[in-house]
Amino acid sequence: MRVVVLVGGVGGARFLLGVKSALGLPAVGAAEGESKQEVVAVVNTGDDVWMHGLRVCPDLDTCMYTLGGGIDVGRGWGRAGETWTVKEELAAYGAEPTWFGLGDRDVATHLVRSRMLRAGYPLSAVTEALCTRWRPGVRLLPATDDRSETHVVVDDPDSGERRAIHFQEWWVRHRAGLPAHAIVPVGADEAKPAPGVAEALAAADVVVLAPSNPVVSVGTILAVPGIRQAIRQTPAKVVGISPIIAGRPLRGMADACLAAIGVETTAEAVGRHYGSRGEGGVLDGWLVHTGDTADVPGVAVRAVPLLMSDVDATAAMARAAFELAGVSVG
Amino acid sequence: MRVVVLVGGVGGARFLLGVKSALGLPAVGAAEGESKQEVVAVVNTGDDVWMHGLRVCPDLDTCMYTLGGGIDVGRGWGRAGETWTVKEELAAYGAEPTWFGLGDRDVATHLVRSRMLRAGYPLSAVTEALCTRWRPGVRLLPATDDRSETHVVVDDPDSGERRAIHFQEWWVRHRAGLPAHAIVPVGADEAKPAPGVAEALAAADVVVLAPSNPVVSVGTILAVPGIRQAIRQTPAKVVGISPIIAGRPLRGMADACLAAIGVETTAEAVGRHYGSRGEGGVLDGWLVHTGDTADVPGVAVRAVPLLMSDVDATAAMARAAFELAGVSVG
Repeated sequence: MRVVVLVGGVGGARFLLGVKSALGLPAVGAAEGESKQEVVAVVNTGDDVWMHGLRVCPDLDTCMYTLGGGIDVGRGWGRAGETWTVKEELAAYGAEPTWFGLGDRDVATHLVRSRMLRAGYPLSAVTEALCTRWRPGVRLLPATDDRSETHVVVDDPDSGERRAIHFQEWWVRHRAGLPAHAIVPVGADEAKPAPGVAEALAAADVVVLAPSNPVVSVGTILAVPGIRQAIRQTPAKVVGISPIIAGRPLRGMADACLAAIGVETTAEAVGRHYGSRGEGGVLDGWLVHTGDTADVPGVAVRAVPLLMSDVDATAAMARAAFELAGVSVG
Repeated sequence: MRVVVLVGGVGGARFLLGVKSALGLPAVGAAEGESKQEVVAVVNTGDDVWMHGLRVCPDLDTCMYTLGGGIDVGRGWGRAGETWTVKEELAAYGAEPTWFGLGDRDVATHLVRSRMLRAGYPLSAVTEALCTRWRPGVRLLPATDDRSETHVVVDDPDSGERRAIHFQEWWVRHRAGLPAHAIVPVGADEAKPAPGVAEALAAADVVVLAPSNPVVSVGTILAVPGIRQAIRQTPAKVVGISPIIAGRPLRGMADACLAAIGVETTAEAVGRHYGSRGEGGVLDGWLVHTGDTADVPGVAVRAVPLLMSDVDATAAMARAAFELAGVSVG
């Protein structure tokens, strides 16, 4: 069974724990010996950013740490037992920005990554190298090795002028509190899928869109033309999982992102935004939360519990996605 | 009174505390208000190295931390209260080298520096920027903004082949325990003095060679042709202070360096190695430790206590250097 999952950060990483568990793999870490189950995670890179000369890849790292057992479980991002000496010292130098949570353990990851990138390795190779330590038990692929960076068009709170800021500045510094006039995946048009992404999609038994942010996580991945095309052409069924429950995002600030692209914060509206593969979209199936309804033309909709309260509940979500796709584990 | 001091790391930084104190300046930190006393430290950059993608300048940082009150006093280098999370994490990734002491607080300095260097600022401008935080009370100038990197020719302990390794690898990793066939300031020939260095030397009332390593600290500075020339041409007197006491280095492993260039580990031999300004060298005066003797043709030699046991003892050394140069503080 070959499963490809499109994911963002915290929610996507948690969903992957459930996918692994549903497949009989250890949720955290790698299986011993050979396994017939293969999970490929295509991870959003639109949030990636240079900070203090370090390349930070929040979603890749969240997935890597979560699946590798290094995550701060309570916070959902960053390393367990993290310390903040480097961040405090940077602030003492007056080095901007100061609003980004750069932990000491995390810094080492970014140092290894930045050094490899500067030496000419593509992000996909860097990620593979970092994963030799973390053994996440899934193949973590950046959506693209090319620059595809999410920018958000806002009115500058100081000058009032309309300008585009990096997603991280909007998300972390302003907590998505500045109204977004547009969200733009800069460079996505010309980005190519990272090596292995299109191949994994072509060979998949099922493709799942995790209940990640439909705009700045899954949306940014789908903004890479070669990925969208590979999803539209794969013989596998493609099932999406709604990140919207009872008109509210499962977590994060997806509503602010949806508003920016003129999509209502409902399971139905997001399902229609993804759209049916038969009509130019990417979905064959759409899972909504128990009690929600959605009419998405050309897409099979099913309602199941979608709260990722623990690994078992999340595994049940993954199994429901497999079932809707008509594939069985084993 | 304008004093220019050529310095390396730990010993040089301690000597600068004494110079400041001898001039009535606070040993640590900057004087409040205007002062007629100006100290310019020309700092060795031959030990500088890229480590994990970070530009590390051990001597500049040791001077900056020591004079700015941030040094680990016991160890003599690195930050007080230092932690080592980044280093441990880099080792967990298998990132080489693992033998270099990269502290978390220190990493922030290197991040700020590396980012500025990559943005195109010269090291002298970067150093000035870092010093706005540390306020060392002396003007810290790198000897050069150009690449001038000390390499050591050794027999590789594994292969037996003769090859050149970076000074840091020889000094820190091998503790100067591999016999050095040669010590080469790579690039020094083509390096230019950093902005302000030649000007400071030309305008100096006295120039002092700190009791730093005569080969890899002061020697590397003097290997920059424009600096050597400026020292030979300055109207000020130039006084050196022997780092060798009773045939042993004051600290560090200067004997191993001297052996590599065929100079005996005696105060006299080092004085002769520097040589008289009248005969192509750089010295007018040479201070040796009480009990030591030195016959250096063309150079005034005086014996005074040269143990930098505390700031007062070190200030007395600085005053002895000023006296030998015929200048008086005030």
